Amino acid sequence: MTILRIFIFLVLFTVAIGNENLNSHVFPRPLIIEYPENNEPQYYKDDEVQLKCTSWRFAVEANNLSPWKTVPEECAHYVRQYIVGPGYNMDIDRVSDEAVAFANNVNLGADAKDVWVFDVDETLLSNLPYYADHGYGLEIFDSVEFDKWVETGMAPALGSSLKLYQEVLSLGFKVFLLTGRSERHRNVTVENLMNAGFHDWDKLILRGSDDHGKTATTYKSERRNEMVEEGFRIVGNSGDQWSDLLGSSMSNRSFKLPNPMYYIP
Amino acid sequence: MTILRIFIFLVLFTVAIGNENLNSHVFPRPLIIEYPENNEPQYYKDDEVQLKCTSWRFAVEANNLSPWKTVPEECAHYVRQYIVGPGYNMDIDRVSDEAVAFANNVNLGADAKDVWVFDVDETLLSNLPYYADHGYGLEIFDSVEFDKWVETGMAPALGSSLKLYQEVLSLGFKVFLLTGRSERHRNVTVENLMNAGFHDWDKLILRGSDDHGKTATTYKSERRNEMVEEGFRIVGNSGDQWSDLLGSSMSNRSFKLPNPMYYIP
Repeated sequence: MTILRIFIFLVLFTVAIGNENLNSHVFPRPLIIEYPENNEPQYYKDDEVQLKCTSWRFAVEANNLSPWKTVPEECAHYVRQYIVGPGYNMDIDRVSDEAVAFANNVNLGADAKDVWVFDVDETLLSNLPYYADHGYGLEIFDSVEFDKWVETGMAPALGSSLKLYQEVLSLGFKVFLLTGRSERHRNVTVENLMNAGFHDWDKLILRGSDDHGKTATTYKSERRNEMVEEGFRIVGNSGDQWSDLLGSSMSNRSFKLPNPMYYIP
Repeated sequence: MTILRIFIFLVLFTVAIGNENLNSHVFPRPLIIEYPENNEPQYYKDDEVQLKCTSWRFAVEANNLSPWKTVPEECAHYVRQYIVGPGYNMDIDRVSDEAVAFANNVNLGADAKDVWVFDVDETLLSNLPYYADHGYGLEIFDSVEFDKWVETGMAPALGSSLKLYQEVLSLGFKVFLLTGRSERHRNVTVENLMNAGFHDWDKLILRGSDDHGKTATTYKSERRNEMVEEGFRIVGNSGDQWSDLLGSSMSNRSFKLPNPMYYIP
């Protein structure tokens, strides 16, 4: 039985050593994460989805997509991660920094006719509390529900846009707010803007009864045309939609804030 | 000895079963990749650089950056990976697919006055063989060296742009090529385009002696103005630079191909 005991000891000892090697030498083995087999396709699929959704987001931001209604279902998680993660804020900060740098290099006329135009939603005010409850653009836009949110007057400021806003004001630009919100939301919009820290704008232009049915591009172009006719020079324009920026009487420089959640023609 | 044999069998059997459990149950253990300690900062730094350079690339593609001269040094690797990896091709394919879909929905006039404008470099022809030797945009643009490359006439087609090109031709669009290349490169450009598969364009417009010193935006706007004066309708416009697309006499729809390697004002 002594031989048997020694043998058992040796066998167990070898097993013990063997196990320790398994744990401590993870590294010299090839660095392959051993997912259970049925998870491997998921892993590669995630990479593929990341790539496809980044490509989709580029197409959105470069204005290459035909009117789109919702975030593609496969990109729902991607867009959510982008918005709640560091990416969205980093992009917004960069737009604001670029705009501040540009604004500081403008030689303003002595006639106080240099204008900076700002859009409101997703440019000065953030509706993320609303979109967080509506799939960050995955659900089809529901104007009735959205209006209820607007009427709470609770939209917070986009911090870096507030910084830009204050900077252009202090430089001496006229500030015109040009929003697709309806004239009937003027009071709540004023209140919301002021509570969020925006003051001293020169004009707040909302959609009047004549403007309903017009695309944002048309409505905003018409209002910019009026500014130009009144002798203003539209130097800068900040908006999260290309329909804030393109059309007639375009600004010298425009700044496109990111928005992968919705599209307004 | 029979008892001993049975015992050894049982021990080895247990060990075998035990090891199998170790392998198949990797999953309930926390999924943490065990990098050696000194690699961890690099890992996080890579993530941060990835995020910052994606943000930079968005700013480029959304036309938010003031004129920029080169790829930021910290994004050199990122841009290279984007170009040689699947991202660039995926983005280009998407632009082309969107343009094909749009072109197919246009009702062309019977007067053959509907035009699609194409830029040449990084739109129809790819200069990647040149940029591969020059850091994919990390080096300051060297027009002398680049001209030597142009004069080889060896630039390959962007495959998905060739597809779009053939599609719009077959739909009955007039095709006008509007390039920043100089008139003295007409012959080599024609030869290069034809060797790359592009045929039957209606006009190839190059910079004449009067155009030197003009920004691309001005030069291309002037040429588009002439098209409009001649009664053409500019329906589509494909280019990798915003200076191909913005200015006066803009197209109904424009398609911005990605280009994080260089910027032309």
